[in-house]
Amino acid sequence: MNVFVIGIGLIGGSLAKDVKVLYPQATVFGIDINPSHLEQAKALHIIDEVANYDDLDKADWVIVAVPVDVALKVVPKVLDKIPANALVVEVGSTKAALCKAISHHKNRRNLLATHPIAGTEFSGPKAAHVGLFKGKTNIICEIDKTAFPIQEMALKLFSDLQMRIRYMKPKAHDKHIAYVSHLSHISSFMLGKTVIEKEQNERDIFDLAGSGFESTVRLAKSSPAMWTPIFQQNKKQITASLEEYIKNLTQFKQLIENDDYEPIFKELESTNKIKEILNGIQFKA
Amino acid sequence: MNVFVIGIGLIGGSLAKDVKVLYPQATVFGIDINPSHLEQAKALHIIDEVANYDDLDKADWVIVAVPVDVALKVVPKVLDKIPANALVVEVGSTKAALCKAISHHKNRRNLLATHPIAGTEFSGPKAAHVGLFKGKTNIICEIDKTAFPIQEMALKLFSDLQMRIRYMKPKAHDKHIAYVSHLSHISSFMLGKTVIEKEQNERDIFDLAGSGFESTVRLAKSSPAMWTPIFQQNKKQITASLEEYIKNLTQFKQLIENDDYEPIFKELESTNKIKEILNGIQFKA
Repeated sequence: MNVFVIGIGLIGGSLAKDVKVLYPQATVFGIDINPSHLEQAKALHIIDEVANYDDLDKADWVIVAVPVDVALKVVPKVLDKIPANALVVEVGSTKAALCKAISHHKNRRNLLATHPIAGTEFSGPKAAHVGLFKGKTNIICEIDKTAFPIQEMALKLFSDLQMRIRYMKPKAHDKHIAYVSHLSHISSFMLGKTVIEKEQNERDIFDLAGSGFESTVRLAKSSPAMWTPIFQQNKKQITASLEEYIKNLTQFKQLIENDDYEPIFKELESTNKIKEILNGIQFKA
Repeated sequence: MNVFVIGIGLIGGSLAKDVKVLYPQATVFGIDINPSHLEQAKALHIIDEVANYDDLDKADWVIVAVPVDVALKVVPKVLDKIPANALVVEVGSTKAALCKAISHHKNRRNLLATHPIAGTEFSGPKAAHVGLFKGKTNIICEIDKTAFPIQEMALKLFSDLQMRIRYMKPKAHDKHIAYVSHLSHISSFMLGKTVIEKEQNERDIFDLAGSGFESTVRLAKSSPAMWTPIFQQNKKQITASLEEYIKNLTQFKQLIENDDYEPIFKELESTNKIKEILNGIQFKA
């Protein structure tokens, strides 16, 4: 079995590693625009062979794990080149733009549009590791547009990876993910920016910041090349979520300014229910 | 040696546990407004005896670990009742209001005003654990207002706890901590609020949120009784930091709305330097 992974970062590289563990007979081919990523991936035994798009005619599976703007160009190119029964899985953090871009492609039925909720603040081949997807949720969009035997292949893979599956429409995906993922990244990046701007003498941050700050700005370490196109593609939903976040912050600031501490207490108390929500999530990372 | 701990939560309880490990000859007395906390603390062997304020005449050390509004009342009361050579350590997350409130107390020289940067989102006696303070920073304010032998006793304790010491003025402390701690808590609480409001069907959050969201809203689990008075006491610095945070978020939203993705990329890239800043912090929690 020939498995091609396009984009050997955290997600693509971790999928490659899992594939090698799950299916020892598979040969994993790597395609990446960055030659040093390919070298690293080979040295780290994430991939068996470096390949290019012309080799896709021998592919059984193709995993596309590139930034979401690049995916809009790469996925049609992959669909052009694959054999008739190959499975193509795309794994980006936005789904509406991709599903729209390939809706009329003659090989649309070979593609499964997914979003495995398994990202971290780390990127590149060195971040890849076995078991990243275990217990995580994989969102699948427009399953009905994927051919049945292709669906079956993909669902077998996700089952072997021990992922939980959830089906959503692309727009609903983008809207929900704007709140529970994209907004978190912006809140974290802007918190980092605010503190860096203020604390011009970095020694102060070193010494005074604790684990709470570290947790809240963790996502500000994320890759700009990955995140800028996500903000672009999910512009409408992200600006809507940001508007509500800014409204809530502004209202909270006004409560403090007006010495209105009883509603502040109540607001903190009712937000504490996030505990129960988070207890329902299984984290393996 | 008689050690009194007033407020048996995460910080007070953890200090009590460390004291029992470090100084097996010490008897640890607990005072708490919440009788069930005292029962738990006794059952968990965090304290040896339940006590009250009238017992403070036999105290060698008193640790005051109560919400910052309560500290303004408790610390003068403690200073009224202690023997001449007793050490009183207060550990709240704001320092200016406390230092001002006790500046003219006749026993001011028995008190050391500190802020161990060791809090987490957990509270209550059950959260207490040995080793919480190891490697953490302890900020000491107005050391010159504490009598020299009392300073020595306290510094020996912090050294035994393996804490790093940093000296600051109360106002500088409150200003810096507004940025690296208090602001993080508000950004996290408001992120939790925004998502809870939006996702009225909680099942969606369960299924779609990943470890990134979990990390960013972790602090929204924090205790309202502890945090409301912190926001009140550090009102000026917190509203200033919130204003800058809201300004940065609004500017970022405008960049997205204007499809201005190059400055977005640059902003994310320059905020990535938080990596190096965080690498300088040693987290043991």
